[in-house]
Amino acid sequence: MSIKYYHSPSPLPLELGGELSELTVAYHTYGTLNKAADNVVWVCHALTADSDVAGWWPHTVEEGAFLDPSKWFVVCANIIGSHYGTTGPLSINPATGLPYYDQFPRITIRDIVAAHRRLAGALGIGRIHALVGSSVGGFQAVEWAAEEPERFGRLILIATDAKASPWAIAIDETQRMAIKSDATWGEHRPDAAAAGLAAARAIGLLTYRGPSGYNLTQQDTHELPDLPRPCSYQRHQGEKLCRRFNAYSYVSILDAFDTHDVGRGRGGVETALGRIACPAIVIGLTTDIIFLPEEMRRLASLIPGATYCEISSPLGHDGFLVEHSQLNSILTPFINS
Amino acid sequence: MSIKYYHSPSPLPLELGGELSELTVAYHTYGTLNKAADNVVWVCHALTADSDVAGWWPHTVEEGAFLDPSKWFVVCANIIGSHYGTTGPLSINPATGLPYYDQFPRITIRDIVAAHRRLAGALGIGRIHALVGSSVGGFQAVEWAAEEPERFGRLILIATDAKASPWAIAIDETQRMAIKSDATWGEHRPDAAAAGLAAARAIGLLTYRGPSGYNLTQQDTHELPDLPRPCSYQRHQGEKLCRRFNAYSYVSILDAFDTHDVGRGRGGVETALGRIACPAIVIGLTTDIIFLPEEMRRLASLIPGATYCEISSPLGHDGFLVEHSQLNSILTPFINS
Repeated sequence: MSIKYYHSPSPLPLELGGELSELTVAYHTYGTLNKAADNVVWVCHALTADSDVAGWWPHTVEEGAFLDPSKWFVVCANIIGSHYGTTGPLSINPATGLPYYDQFPRITIRDIVAAHRRLAGALGIGRIHALVGSSVGGFQAVEWAAEEPERFGRLILIATDAKASPWAIAIDETQRMAIKSDATWGEHRPDAAAAGLAAARAIGLLTYRGPSGYNLTQQDTHELPDLPRPCSYQRHQGEKLCRRFNAYSYVSILDAFDTHDVGRGRGGVETALGRIACPAIVIGLTTDIIFLPEEMRRLASLIPGATYCEISSPLGHDGFLVEHSQLNSILTPFINS
Repeated sequence: MSIKYYHSPSPLPLELGGELSELTVAYHTYGTLNKAADNVVWVCHALTADSDVAGWWPHTVEEGAFLDPSKWFVVCANIIGSHYGTTGPLSINPATGLPYYDQFPRITIRDIVAAHRRLAGALGIGRIHALVGSSVGGFQAVEWAAEEPERFGRLILIATDAKASPWAIAIDETQRMAIKSDATWGEHRPDAAAAGLAAARAIGLLTYRGPSGYNLTQQDTHELPDLPRPCSYQRHQGEKLCRRFNAYSYVSILDAFDTHDVGRGRGGVETALGRIACPAIVIGLTTDIIFLPEEMRRLASLIPGATYCEISSPLGHDGFLVEHSQLNSILTPFINS
């Protein structure tokens, strides 16, 4: 399916003040909305992904998989702040006629969800059969579920949290430090702070893959290599992100990440999660060092209708992108039930 | 005790080629070498520490503790490449009359040990009752024990490894990427790449403290803080290191770290560790995400006379600097036995 664009007819007010006076949302859909409009599955994407779920989440959007497009109308919207078509730091600021860059207003996970809700309305979607989010996608999903608990039939949260932990915020701040230690940060061009962004991506990867991921895949076979495999891997991943993303979007999303707290203004995390009425599945990954299995178990215990499942993977947090067989075998029956 | 300096009468040849034509080693000693010269305990320090063990390792160098200076002659030498008195990147390069900065030759853990051995000889130390190392200090200790297995009466390895793992090398490379993304890297002044060094330190801290360390100590108490505690903590720690260290030394030591392989030229790690003849204790920390408990257990299993002990700590790898009661209760009887 190809990318589509929704242009909102009115500005989007932002939680921390100000607004996005022009709002475009890029999105993908797979399958067909049925007449009853009751076969919607909404997927929220993570940090640097885009709206093309079938692209970044192999073997989940296909017949027999949990996002089977012959059954479900699957929707995924690129998040605000991002680089893939939705309004973000490289978009034109109508006030100046120039790209926002570092003048893009500070956004929160709630603003991201507000943009999703506008798109859903425009697509004629009311009730959503299932809401799915992994990692920062899960931040959006749990936030949306707490905001409109009656709207969803199922909730699927994978390797995520109800509130950004001090650990996760420290990881984000360290990435911002790396980006801003590149003196080209602040320059008004799309490739500003590229070396800093590469270093930030390398930091992110450490946390996505963790000890078992690196020790499994990046072992050298001979003594004293000129460039050890883990070094070339880190550099390569950094450069790769620089070719497809920009430092301003990256920082905008990290900043939004840190504001995540489903309990804000709702009497705390436990009360907010207690509102969620639908059946839910919370999935942890055995070697995830960002969202630890014990934290995922705790998240499940606070959502009334939730079951906890664990995926066994040596690939850390990134296991959610790879372990599609385990995901499908847990989620296909759940989403069809 | 105050710092002392040993000036080597001859150049130090380096494993990867070249030499240090002038070698100074800064060191501390505590207690008195007895007449039989058989009460030596040698401590190897980690990454950015110095030779003042009593300063960086509270409650270990005192009466009743395992490094009791009334019994033992405790020696610790600042490592080559470092910032604290031993020859390193800020030392004068005799060939140019100017500091080395980024022209400091590439060193290995074996070169660091070679400098220790020169100092030991100069101090009239033959046999060493106990050799102690934690983290990169442990790299030196296990390397030295494999090089001269007859020299030591006891070996104590804390939160360390026989070979730098792909995971540990990836962490180092990411820190180098952060440092070198600061365009002042390469400038010939002691404070070059300070912003990059601060980011690198913040990366290091993530791995030293880990999820449980941050989640225990950096929790915010109110909603949407202007600057979350984990952010100010990361910045503060970065700035603090910049006031006491330099980017050239940091990179020099990271590079040496990555070369660590006790098995190099010795028929592999298992054969090299099999040489170690003395009683040994290997200590892991429950929440260490750099040197995982299962890896420490494996290290112990490969050293013929080794016992594995685990310290329970929520502070990750840095627990070794803090959990002195547990350390003393394991190590005091071991070192006295």
